[in-house]
Amino acid sequence: MTDAEIAALDAADPLAALREEFEIPEGLLYLDGNSLGPLTRAARLRMVEVVEQQWGHSLIRGWNDHDWMGAPRRVGDAIAGLIGAEPGEVIVADSTSANLFKLAVAAMQARPDRKVVLSEPGDFPTDLYMLEGTIRTLGEGRRLELRPADEIEAALTEEVALLVLCHAHYKTARIRDMARLTAAAHAVGALVIWDLSHSAGVLQVDLNGCNADLAVGCGYKYLNGGPGAPAFLFVARRHQDSLVSPLSGWMGHSAPFTFQDAYDPYCGIERFACGTPPILGVSALECGVALSVRAGPKALRAKAAALTDLFISRVEAGPAASELRLVTPRKASQRGGHVSFSHPDGYAIVQALIARNVIGDFRDPDIARFGFSPLTLSFAQVARAADILGEVVSGSLYDRPEYRKRAAVT
Amino acid sequence: MTDAEIAALDAADPLAALREEFEIPEGLLYLDGNSLGPLTRAARLRMVEVVEQQWGHSLIRGWNDHDWMGAPRRVGDAIAGLIGAEPGEVIVADSTSANLFKLAVAAMQARPDRKVVLSEPGDFPTDLYMLEGTIRTLGEGRRLELRPADEIEAALTEEVALLVLCHAHYKTARIRDMARLTAAAHAVGALVIWDLSHSAGVLQVDLNGCNADLAVGCGYKYLNGGPGAPAFLFVARRHQDSLVSPLSGWMGHSAPFTFQDAYDPYCGIERFACGTPPILGVSALECGVALSVRAGPKALRAKAAALTDLFISRVEAGPAASELRLVTPRKASQRGGHVSFSHPDGYAIVQALIARNVIGDFRDPDIARFGFSPLTLSFAQVARAADILGEVVSGSLYDRPEYRKRAAVT
Repeated sequence: MTDAEIAALDAADPLAALREEFEIPEGLLYLDGNSLGPLTRAARLRMVEVVEQQWGHSLIRGWNDHDWMGAPRRVGDAIAGLIGAEPGEVIVADSTSANLFKLAVAAMQARPDRKVVLSEPGDFPTDLYMLEGTIRTLGEGRRLELRPADEIEAALTEEVALLVLCHAHYKTARIRDMARLTAAAHAVGALVIWDLSHSAGVLQVDLNGCNADLAVGCGYKYLNGGPGAPAFLFVARRHQDSLVSPLSGWMGHSAPFTFQDAYDPYCGIERFACGTPPILGVSALECGVALSVRAGPKALRAKAAALTDLFISRVEAGPAASELRLVTPRKASQRGGHVSFSHPDGYAIVQALIARNVIGDFRDPDIARFGFSPLTLSFAQVARAADILGEVVSGSLYDRPEYRKRAAVT
Repeated sequence: MTDAEIAALDAADPLAALREEFEIPEGLLYLDGNSLGPLTRAARLRMVEVVEQQWGHSLIRGWNDHDWMGAPRRVGDAIAGLIGAEPGEVIVADSTSANLFKLAVAAMQARPDRKVVLSEPGDFPTDLYMLEGTIRTLGEGRRLELRPADEIEAALTEEVALLVLCHAHYKTARIRDMARLTAAAHAVGALVIWDLSHSAGVLQVDLNGCNADLAVGCGYKYLNGGPGAPAFLFVARRHQDSLVSPLSGWMGHSAPFTFQDAYDPYCGIERFACGTPPILGVSALECGVALSVRAGPKALRAKAAALTDLFISRVEAGPAASELRLVTPRKASQRGGHVSFSHPDGYAIVQALIARNVIGDFRDPDIARFGFSPLTLSFAQVARAADILGEVVSGSLYDRPEYRKRAAVT
């Protein structure tokens, strides 16, 4: 693709103007919005307001005067529009991990005669760890069964209470067929939890269209909520009355400020909240989510597909093609917003790129991973990043000792 | 006490200079630092730095470059010094509610033959709700028994796995005898969780001196961490290897960035972390905690005792004495940092005070509650607030319809 063709893509990009809403250092090619989305201008301003005006001036009155109490539901309703859910089916709370535990326990308890929770080896580790915690806590012979992706459907038996899968895989970006797998699980009477961490804000997720039961997702990736932003969870309205969160904290109570001794769960998604909402984090997240809402999931998905197409084709047409192995599905419809290549020196390659202001990340054992946030990247930037990757790999520019020194966080 | 005597107390106050570290609106008498501590100057500046420089400029590199990953442990170590714990025994994570669940489940699972978790009716409701969640999740005949304060020791039998109590009561401020009750529980082989939400940053808590097992506490009250700040938990070192969190998320893994499928808990307090740490919230909390550390628990406790003494004596020497009933222990050694009076019109009284720039809060059914953060209040302010309370009550200035209209959050 020529420079002129790439410029034409940017000129025709309906999301181009939204790049101005982000504050990304000049000259940085940031291909890690799938791991930590960049700062939004709105969040920078909002944090000053929340800290100085709301916390500083309103103090405790902020709970009423600035509707802090309503923030988890308000931001949840906004996220609902990005993932095919209705208002009242999504709430912002806790971490993705904690939310998965809440829903997994609630779902397992709703199927008390079934002992199996089914998932996939190599799915995002914290999900598997939380499922270990779920079965260890519930006891009574429950067990976690891990089956490779192509054996999941065959493993869906009437012993299975719950299937838990990541919608888009954190390493490969492969998308699972939500409609098909949900239907297969329902056919044997099992419930499904979808982890949307690598989907929300970049794919056209259609939870209700797929008759989904439950979902969780992350606030700090494509939703641009800031480091360690609070997470979200979805419970289809038909399940809300029958499922009870194990983390039955006061924010899920029907009347938290009557300070009763006995737990009485809220009628609605709020019952899956737990402790006092983290106002700083929810406020920053609200700003990020608002930009995804402005773009809309259809346009986000289309641009992510185009950006990843461009990156893959340009890398594979470039000088490093023979050395890098694409581990992401080649068909855009089968992949999320990131692209991974394997290479024995994947770690050093990522470090060499960072030294050249191209930020991706590394995933064990040999994966160089690049995220293509459709809100924050231009086609020209993606082409430039592909070219630099080609130079670094083909010229062995990564082959220096300082690029092999492992950091604590990769 | 004369104005001159009060001025002398302020002149002799070793913590007086620390009031300058808070940004409280001019003219406001803020007696609700026990519910939401005020903004610190350091947090205002720190949030700009964390948002603009760290998130905005470092982006994903912040996890290494700004040691975001170490923040929960670093702030936990600082809190440890306030509550009689050692570095490595406290970590910042999640909410108080979620932390209570983690420790309650871990403790109950460490005593599998014992079915009872014991607590007190009227203790902070979310603690009781989480214990309901604990027994509902663990099943197998476990049950929650609630016994009045003076029957707790008699109810400690060999059926009891776990005793859970608030150290300072959220309504009355009554302090439980940590050493005695811990020893009584240990005598029957039970473990104890102390909720320090109304103690940390205001009392001289001595967890290790009391041979405490486990504790949780709140970041947004006397620790001044901001609205919905992350909470903390304590696990005595002797229990750290044998207890496993049910919320076994990746931040509690021994090697989270190797992305293994199997959970392997960290050797140390980090195993009680769960999801990705909330960096905005932890950063603001760190600033608040640092001020409590500068003051030191002994000075904090002494000033809280003196402020509450002054408030009680001045209200009871004033014109409203006959109408207000003190529900807080009269002896300073038996109460925390807040003071509660009951009055049939307690709600309206609190609203009338707020209209006069004196902020306390109301707790059902008839409690007007006033908090005395030793870092943020002068003796002169406390005397003035007592005088205004006397005027409002004795003059029935609260008797107006607009003061009876209930807000969502009280």
